[in-house]
Amino acid sequence: MPIYNAPNKDIQFVLHDLLKVSEQDIPGFDDLDRDFTSAVVEEAGKVASEVLHPLNVVGDTEGCVMENGVVRTPTGFKEAFEQMKEGGWTAMDCDPEYGGQGLPYVMHTAAQEPFVSANMAFNMYQGLTHGAYSAIYAHGSDEQKQKYLPKMVSCEWTGTMNLTEPHCGTDLGLMRTKAVPNDDGSYKISGQKIFISAGEHDMAENIIHLVLAKIQGGPEGIKGVSLFIVPKFMVNDDGSLGARNGVACGKIEEKMGIHGNSTCVMNYDEATGYLVGEEHKGMRAMFTMMNEARLGVGLQGYAQAESAYQNAVAYANDRLQGRDVTGAKNPDGPADPLIVHPDIRRNLMDQKSFVEGARAFTFWGAYLIDRAHKNQDAEADGLISLMTPVIKGFLTDKGFEYATAAQQVYGGHGYIEEWGMSQYARDARIAMIYEGANGVQALDLVGRKLALDGGKHVMAFFEMIKTFIKENEGNEALNKDFLTPLKAASKDLQAAGMYFMQNATKPNNALSGSYDFMHMMGHVCLGLMWARMAKAAMEALEGGASDTEFYETKIATGRYYMARQLPATAMHLARINTGGDTIMALEAANF
Amino acid sequence: MPIYNAPNKDIQFVLHDLLKVSEQDIPGFDDLDRDFTSAVVEEAGKVASEVLHPLNVVGDTEGCVMENGVVRTPTGFKEAFEQMKEGGWTAMDCDPEYGGQGLPYVMHTAAQEPFVSANMAFNMYQGLTHGAYSAIYAHGSDEQKQKYLPKMVSCEWTGTMNLTEPHCGTDLGLMRTKAVPNDDGSYKISGQKIFISAGEHDMAENIIHLVLAKIQGGPEGIKGVSLFIVPKFMVNDDGSLGARNGVACGKIEEKMGIHGNSTCVMNYDEATGYLVGEEHKGMRAMFTMMNEARLGVGLQGYAQAESAYQNAVAYANDRLQGRDVTGAKNPDGPADPLIVHPDIRRNLMDQKSFVEGARAFTFWGAYLIDRAHKNQDAEADGLISLMTPVIKGFLTDKGFEYATAAQQVYGGHGYIEEWGMSQYARDARIAMIYEGANGVQALDLVGRKLALDGGKHVMAFFEMIKTFIKENEGNEALNKDFLTPLKAASKDLQAAGMYFMQNATKPNNALSGSYDFMHMMGHVCLGLMWARMAKAAMEALEGGASDTEFYETKIATGRYYMARQLPATAMHLARINTGGDTIMALEAANF
Repeated sequence: MPIYNAPNKDIQFVLHDLLKVSEQDIPGFDDLDRDFTSAVVEEAGKVASEVLHPLNVVGDTEGCVMENGVVRTPTGFKEAFEQMKEGGWTAMDCDPEYGGQGLPYVMHTAAQEPFVSANMAFNMYQGLTHGAYSAIYAHGSDEQKQKYLPKMVSCEWTGTMNLTEPHCGTDLGLMRTKAVPNDDGSYKISGQKIFISAGEHDMAENIIHLVLAKIQGGPEGIKGVSLFIVPKFMVNDDGSLGARNGVACGKIEEKMGIHGNSTCVMNYDEATGYLVGEEHKGMRAMFTMMNEARLGVGLQGYAQAESAYQNAVAYANDRLQGRDVTGAKNPDGPADPLIVHPDIRRNLMDQKSFVEGARAFTFWGAYLIDRAHKNQDAEADGLISLMTPVIKGFLTDKGFEYATAAQQVYGGHGYIEEWGMSQYARDARIAMIYEGANGVQALDLVGRKLALDGGKHVMAFFEMIKTFIKENEGNEALNKDFLTPLKAASKDLQAAGMYFMQNATKPNNALSGSYDFMHMMGHVCLGLMWARMAKAAMEALEGGASDTEFYETKIATGRYYMARQLPATAMHLARINTGGDTIMALEAANF
Repeated sequence: MPIYNAPNKDIQFVLHDLLKVSEQDIPGFDDLDRDFTSAVVEEAGKVASEVLHPLNVVGDTEGCVMENGVVRTPTGFKEAFEQMKEGGWTAMDCDPEYGGQGLPYVMHTAAQEPFVSANMAFNMYQGLTHGAYSAIYAHGSDEQKQKYLPKMVSCEWTGTMNLTEPHCGTDLGLMRTKAVPNDDGSYKISGQKIFISAGEHDMAENIIHLVLAKIQGGPEGIKGVSLFIVPKFMVNDDGSLGARNGVACGKIEEKMGIHGNSTCVMNYDEATGYLVGEEHKGMRAMFTMMNEARLGVGLQGYAQAESAYQNAVAYANDRLQGRDVTGAKNPDGPADPLIVHPDIRRNLMDQKSFVEGARAFTFWGAYLIDRAHKNQDAEADGLISLMTPVIKGFLTDKGFEYATAAQQVYGGHGYIEEWGMSQYARDARIAMIYEGANGVQALDLVGRKLALDGGKHVMAFFEMIKTFIKENEGNEALNKDFLTPLKAASKDLQAAGMYFMQNATKPNNALSGSYDFMHMMGHVCLGLMWARMAKAAMEALEGGASDTEFYETKIATGRYYMARQLPATAMHLARINTGGDTIMALEAANF
């Protein structure tokens, strides 16, 4: 049975030592003092460990089952969902007008991490609802908000996002689902949507589907896509439930992982739908919530790696195998624990330094979202737009890589389902695919975000690194182990950006390097996070912090990342500089 | 339903253009002319595509089932196994004295690849038997050989390898399984072995278990381990089957993949066993077959990537999504096929250039094994010993990475089991673990093989690269795109070797870089293979070969590998040069 303990201390470190949330001039942030966040984070961690984590393997083993159109979630999910609702965990950052607690998004993110680490498939029921809430909140009419949001905030009703169709995922302009106007202002929605997470289940009395469809007679392609609310059960004006709507789950998919979440084929047969926002502006409505959704998926990536890492550490301390080459560490035992071996440590340090860096990066992203939304800060908005594909693409690629690396520590036992390590890898795998496959994230980054607003945001990012280095290069310890490698990596990243600019007229040269650029930028971002965290830890030690071991470990972990991971940027740059010729050389038939 | 077509043309290219097998001065190789190998390879490919491949998904879905101690293999496996036996596919490189065909190991390897690509789990029943055959062939008495080998060559009886116990895998010195001498020269074997592939099943009338155990009173630890034959059914002197022996399958494991192969807990309860070779020399008997076994696992790695790649190419050509940024390639269709997009091509070229390089590397390894065994060539033996951990570790890491990358091309469909791409990744995953986890391969390479015979073999390898570069640097096309990057990568590898030598007294510094070194050496080996293949392809084109497209594609694919993959060596070197300090910095309690 795998273990999970929420990393409360590290979450607090990121919130307070790194981001200094309670000192920020953002509405609501002054409430986030150490005691308050500690109480929330500890309680979330407790729920995660005690309620959600024990159901993780159950969800994987049982999966969801569909019988006579009814989808049954795994044993215990329903009860756990009730507990989440009762605890108010579904409403943290939602608007108090609709029953939410109005907390900052960064606080929501800090509480989400343990839930996702403990049981990713379970948490998606709530996560999708949150996404649907955000879309209606941003684009729905007052009437729609009043009608749907209170029950979605409380998760009495859950939500879904319906984008993909059998023949189109990334290229939604090919969409075929149709919307035909009714006389009363509503629409008849017909078509088939696939890969709909939480599309049908038994944990809520109603499901509010958000559906992209084309209104007949509208513009061709992506410009003719509109967003609709399609409730499973019609909602009467008094809020009571009416007739069943013309939407049904056709089947649930057998997947590699996240078995506890029902992934549905949804069939719409003249279902009644209500337009959200303007006609043909459905994609815009989707885009406004994309930063949050993609940050949430990036979090899934590293949160699975965190869980897998905790187990790998436990196993490495427990399993006796071989001897330390420099002398027995457990001379009275039959062998030393795995953790004495350098290559096991190399593996664990890779995991640890990634997860902690990724946590800082993700929370920083959430903080930028707060700054953008609550302060109408355009710079923060531009920066998080730039970072979003990196958070999503890099953290999920690496999250899967390290969940797999943690599995490797177990040797043969890692491959046996009973030990639970396979599930972390299988669950983490989806995060690289959904919410825009990672190749699409790289395309978004290089093809769109770099040049956005005249390249202003990426320049601001470079400037931020430069300023940080300049301000701190007098700090010798920081300079040698952190600033010097950060400077080199940032220089590589700028050189790659320069290459793309010089090749603006040859888009294949730039796009051939997009994936490398995304990873390179991921390393630079984590490098920046580590340099900042090291500085914060050094300051804490200088300030006489009592938990010296924690801060010293933090600095040592950062040193590892800078020394062993940042050299990857030079490799990515070398690849990018080879351009597109070798990539585009073959005729399609010769693959 | 996934596809699979054996890459006959490429297999022939490696055998004849690259290795020039029929021109080699090795007994049996002069039979390997193009017509003969083509006939064998094509027929193997046909069996793979038509018989084994259709059972791959069946095996994954049904798995093996144990009822009342009987293990039932998936539907169709038994019939397919009969076909393999009838076709003589189980006997290719075995000694004719015991019913084999006596073909070179490289030919066996060339025929194995399609079998493994088509159905890895199925092929393991035969693969394990082959391993057990080799151990008995090398170390058994004449009587044992006469008694067991003919039926094992024909696969009427299958074989297993019993090493791992619940508390020990890598560190077999901790073994508890006991052997107590009987009066008649046999032994009573008692203990539990786990992860025994093909330990129990319904496809053979008898199963010959090779079991490592400790004879009571023998030396402590690994030096007291002996090897035993423990048949499931006792074998009478006339070859007929006698009573059931005291060995039984306790349970079969639920695994992440290779569901079609039964992975068994085997319980030995005073089972009758027969010593193979000398007392306490069990590990030596194991080691002699390790090169072959590990090469076979390396082959599994790239063979799964090959299958996954073929499907990814088909999907990329088929699926219409988005438009070529340089202008529509399918203007009459609703969108262009995925393969127009640079990042999809980047991904497919990664896969293609790896698989073809890996095939060459593996076949070259098999050829070295032939040279070592059939010519008693000590240099070849030293070289393959050096290469074995690289073939196993690098090719299985990359094989899994690229099976996963192929899955990514499918977007959401890649995560749905129905499409078959998940299975390639899940099956490939085990190859990184069994037959010595890849971290152990890296340790073997850096801790043992580099220094073997005074470092003679690694020096010979460097010399081989140097000579090849020197002999060909007049060839301008080869020099620019192939020899120059190979020289740089080889220089990185030598620098890493130098670092290890300088740190001989600080073993943690060397071992901290072992994994990076293994990957670095993998890239140099594939770089060497690609340089040689490019030269062979250029010569074929100069010689007026008719299939110019094949050879030009080969050169272009090699150019990709050299340009985009070889820069990894500099990153690995940079990591290695940071030594062990950042890796060993933390106390175990601070992970």
